[in-house]
Amino acid sequence: MSIRVGIVGISGYGGGEVLRLCATHPTFDLVYAAGESSAGAKLVEKFPGIGRLGDLVIQKWNPADLPQLDVLFASLPSGESKEALARVPASTKIIDIGGDHRFVEGWTYGLADVWPDQIRYQTRIANPGCYPAASLSALAPLLAHHLIDPASIIIDAKSGVSGAGRGGGSTFGYAEVNEDVSAYGLLKHAHVPEMTKALSQIGGKPAQITFTPHLIPMTRGILATCYTSGSATTEQCLQAAREFYRNRPFVRVTDKPPHTKWALGTNLVFVSYAADPQRKLIMALGAIDNLGKGAAGQAIQNANLITGQDESAGLQGTALWP
Amino acid sequence: MSIRVGIVGISGYGGGEVLRLCATHPTFDLVYAAGESSAGAKLVEKFPGIGRLGDLVIQKWNPADLPQLDVLFASLPSGESKEALARVPASTKIIDIGGDHRFVEGWTYGLADVWPDQIRYQTRIANPGCYPAASLSALAPLLAHHLIDPASIIIDAKSGVSGAGRGGGSTFGYAEVNEDVSAYGLLKHAHVPEMTKALSQIGGKPAQITFTPHLIPMTRGILATCYTSGSATTEQCLQAAREFYRNRPFVRVTDKPPHTKWALGTNLVFVSYAADPQRKLIMALGAIDNLGKGAAGQAIQNANLITGQDESAGLQGTALWP
Amino acid sequence: MSIRVGIVGISGYGGGEVLRLCATHPTFDLVYAAGESSAGAKLVEKFPGIGRLGDLVIQKWNPADLPQLDVLFASLPSGESKEALARVPASTKIIDIGGDHRFVEGWTYGLADVWPDQIRYQTRIANPGCYPAASLSALAPLLAHHLIDPASIIIDAKSGVSGAGRGGGSTFGYAEVNEDVSAYGLLKHAHVPEMTKALSQIGGKPAQITFTPHLIPMTRGILATCYTSGSATTEQCLQAAREFYRNRPFVRVTDKPPHTKWALGTNLVFVSYAADPQRKLIMALGAIDNLGKGAAGQAIQNANLITGQDESAGLQGTALWP
Amino acid sequence: MSIRVGIVGISGYGGGEVLRLCATHPTFDLVYAAGESSAGAKLVEKFPGIGRLGDLVIQKWNPADLPQLDVLFASLPSGESKEALARVPASTKIIDIGGDHRFVEGWTYGLADVWPDQIRYQTRIANPGCYPAASLSALAPLLAHHLIDPASIIIDAKSGVSGAGRGGGSTFGYAEVNEDVSAYGLLKHAHVPEMTKALSQIGGKPAQITFTPHLIPMTRGILATCYTSGSATTEQCLQAAREFYRNRPFVRVTDKPPHTKWALGTNLVFVSYAADPQRKLIMALGAIDNLGKGAAGQAIQNANLITGQDESAGLQGTALWP
Repeated sequence: MSIRVGIVGISGYGGGEVLRLCATHPTFDLVYAAGESSAGAKLVEKFPGIGRLGDLVIQKWNPADLPQLDVLFASLPSGESKEALARVPASTKIIDIGGDHRFVEGWTYGLADVWPDQIRYQTRIANPGCYPAASLSALAPLLAHHLIDPASIIIDAKSGVSGAGRGGGSTFGYAEVNEDVSAYGLLKHAHVPEMTKALSQIGGKPAQITFTPHLIPMTRGILATCYTSGSATTEQCLQAAREFYRNRPFVRVTDKPPHTKWALGTNLVFVSYAADPQRKLIMALGAIDNLGKGAAGQAIQNANLITGQDESAGLQGTALWP
Repeated sequence: MSIRVGIVGISGYGGGEVLRLCATHPTFDLVYAAGESSAGAKLVEKFPGIGRLGDLVIQKWNPADLPQLDVLFASLPSGESKEALARVPASTKIIDIGGDHRFVEGWTYGLADVWPDQIRYQTRIANPGCYPAASLSALAPLLAHHLIDPASIIIDAKSGVSGAGRGGGSTFGYAEVNEDVSAYGLLKHAHVPEMTKALSQIGGKPAQITFTPHLIPMTRGILATCYTSGSATTEQCLQAAREFYRNRPFVRVTDKPPHTKWALGTNLVFVSYAADPQRKLIMALGAIDNLGKGAAGQAIQNANLITGQDESAGLQGTALWP
Repeated sequence: MSIRVGIVGISGYGGGEVLRLCATHPTFDLVYAAGESSAGAKLVEKFPGIGRLGDLVIQKWNPADLPQLDVLFASLPSGESKEALARVPASTKIIDIGGDHRFVEGWTYGLADVWPDQIRYQTRIANPGCYPAASLSALAPLLAHHLIDPASIIIDAKSGVSGAGRGGGSTFGYAEVNEDVSAYGLLKHAHVPEMTKALSQIGGKPAQITFTPHLIPMTRGILATCYTSGSATTEQCLQAAREFYRNRPFVRVTDKPPHTKWALGTNLVFVSYAADPQRKLIMALGAIDNLGKGAAGQAIQNANLITGQDESAGLQGTALWP
Repeated sequence: MSIRVGIVGISGYGGGEVLRLCATHPTFDLVYAAGESSAGAKLVEKFPGIGRLGDLVIQKWNPADLPQLDVLFASLPSGESKEALARVPASTKIIDIGGDHRFVEGWTYGLADVWPDQIRYQTRIANPGCYPAASLSALAPLLAHHLIDPASIIIDAKSGVSGAGRGGGSTFGYAEVNEDVSAYGLLKHAHVPEMTKALSQIGGKPAQITFTPHLIPMTRGILATCYTSGSATTEQCLQAAREFYRNRPFVRVTDKPPHTKWALGTNLVFVSYAADPQRKLIMALGAIDNLGKGAAGQAIQNANLITGQDESAGLQGTALWP
């Protein structure tokens, strides 16, 4: 059985990664691709290494012109999703990779490793942001098992540059990013409300988060290093995570600090923990590929869930190494 | 039908990439992995993102202890292959990724995009080196169509650091490689005789090559920029390549200078040409992933050919972007 | 007046950076350089861009063979300093860049921006570690002004690879470091006691520190992002720092999150602050070049102080950009 | 004696590097800085690590508003220099770092290591391009000594990204440049006429050049690998270069293939040679920092020459290592 899928936002890194994953997906048949800046070109002109889908012509995005689709992946700039996606017919399921529909009524928050059963067979999925994907994966087991104080959470996250998208000029230019690290958006990043809502829901109590994103000189990857209050031991935290993620195909609980490179090009998330019960400190670490679990990988996983496919279909690649 | 395969040299980058490709190959069943430094560990300890093969225990390499295998991939240090591989039973086919058997009697040179029919159903394949893989792919059509003087070839190649393997100390350390480029092995690199033999065979006349490898700050990728004498036009060269590679699944002839990133993580090779007939100059460019077409990708392609599988089996992934 | 200086450990990155700074220092005259692996070579063979000092021959290190020196910079592996430096004559002042003499009796801790007056005219200086240099610079004003709880300190630090020195094999190889970030030494890094002692002294109360170092893909630079408890506002913290560092030549207090690149190649340290009084959270950030303020720059500054030179002599270079 | 200097184009990388070098120049007193995008800001806002010049306010560029200056460094976009610089008073000497005045009447081509005596005391200097700076330095001794055929020159050059300036969007973004190498401008780069003219002049016969620039993932540095026809030995070429550059302060003749990192942050150029007399092949290599010898370093050297300063004034820094 073939599932007809489309992508809007093919020119961006997130849309491009959905395309890459669709190209080897066993049942997804990409029949539509749209992108503002590339309209009129064949996919192969934009993605020279694309393989069998190369002849598909990129369309100008217009919700009124959509062909019949089972699933539409939307990767639009912030603020452009709400109106446009409202015009997509109900028969087309949507995965919104952008941020406009997270915790919006009528949409299900697609944190697939934590809430697969709420996602299955839904029709409107808001894919989590890249920072939340890394952070929530690490923190969820601790909150679900009530091992930490939900009001004590500090998240110090390090991201590769592709998370900023393709714009940004010289700020994201090689010459300026190379040999540099900096924090940004101190005490006010856009992902905080999303993480607060999700963690409050997981823990059953209001969470309070301090979040500091950092830009580091790499293309892909996010590492979230989280500091929280709690009395559990390292082993109790690891055990909580192993139970929480039992049989979940994409989460790896590890007793060593994870490397983002372990996840490069995949939908995997690596979580680990270290605790100092005397000081009541628990550290949680989450490592992902920001375009994998942080965007397109999770989107495919969600699309598998809503269309009744095997959850891992098209996502079984191993990380690129080195 | 399942093909039983094994890998020796799993700790190196080439062996690791064979493993990555085997993990999603539709018919190859990895039943044996050996590596000096990792013996005794499970694969998942060395490759945390490995997926289903993770529980396989790495063996100490000993040709006498091999299980029954259809294909053995060997990625051993220079000088260690000849004696060891001579002890592998004839019933086990071998792909030698190392350099010890190239143009050695009893072995077939595995330049799969150029000589697939000579490779099919052979039992002892010497996989080409990474620099030759990039260079020969670009030059072969010009020599086969007699468009260039085989004695006039200059190859200026740029390689990522993984081509040097995992040793090397601070010379290949991040701190020293970052923000640096240099040439090495001027007028005497080990790959020259291999390239000379292959090009002489393709062109039917003795070739003479000047080859300069460069180390550049990236992990994967080789770009070969070749300068030769000939009177053809750019379009004639492109056309010769299109004909030469007609229906070959992994070669892309492009009219723009290729980027190594187009091939990242794949078995693809991109070739392009630019000519100035007035000056009798023809440029040929070849871009690959040195661990893909330059090592493990080509090894899998060769293994597909000698075992009667579809040549593209397990090699249909699209390049990582960005 | 010329000051006769020597360096032992010239092969390492720290020793090499002392050499670079000595080469343009107005009064330091480098007359002795020693290094295990390079002994017998001229400096120009190891440092091709060295300029006027190139003909100096590198000696095998032996404290008994030292020429008469005013200052010796020692950059020896951990554990090798104590015995060897005890044999240096009292008339030769020593800056120990390694970690063996920090908070050891008879030695002065060389946190030059904070305690210049204690350092001036001393003869045995223990240079701070690279992580402490970044972290203490940011935290000192808050502790000195009693704006934070000294028992609440979390330091999340990101370091370039040169901080690990020249050894380490493929772990610090370009191929493995590129496109990767990871934490290491969770809850047990060697720099914690040093930072705890210094911060307790500055604040006058026992400090307690959680410290997490991270390795990121760059050559030089450390960013320390610190999380502490306190009720002050952002402006109060900035003001405290401006007062604390009034007239100190190398500390820049900035109201934007600092970039490590602002300090590249210099002895500068950039500190910034962000506070959320409601939540009683104060963030402190410190950015340095780990080989500058984190090693050789601070060593030169200390040498200036102990020899009565202008504190900024030889350290007035501007950061490399980009 | 203090020389009053100004910079227009302070926002670009070339202009910024002139600023960095002026900041520690013993006699140049920067009294004017102009830049389109930064006008109105203090220098310290754009260059946080600047030191003593930080309070200077950046002006909007207008040749009519210039203060009295001894030297103006101009780093303007292509095509914007001719008209604007014509309006600068004759009493102000000009170094044009941009390409508009190279081999234009009334201007002297500022290849300072080759033609210092023609440059001294001139008033209008056209600074060489970055690719020519690397290539001509390596080739000049061979042509001057008639060791090669001037019609046989192939230059294969590799450049860091800062050479492309600050524009360019995602093409020069970290995410796309990292892990990539490509050639561009095949057989038609803008620097070819400039190099042809200079080489013809040096050799006294018409030169013919094939030039291929490559973009590689680094911020600074150019390596030019040149292939030419000639019968000399390696030692004869090295000797010719040693003679040609006798007493020139910034050229280092080396018998090992040079690394661009040897020149990082300096005005140095490293040249080397390798020959195969049997094949009549001579290779010449030149390595520079594209913002040093390739732009700002050479500009300062030229400014020293035209104002009667020591040629090396302000340029004695040693390369950053690692």
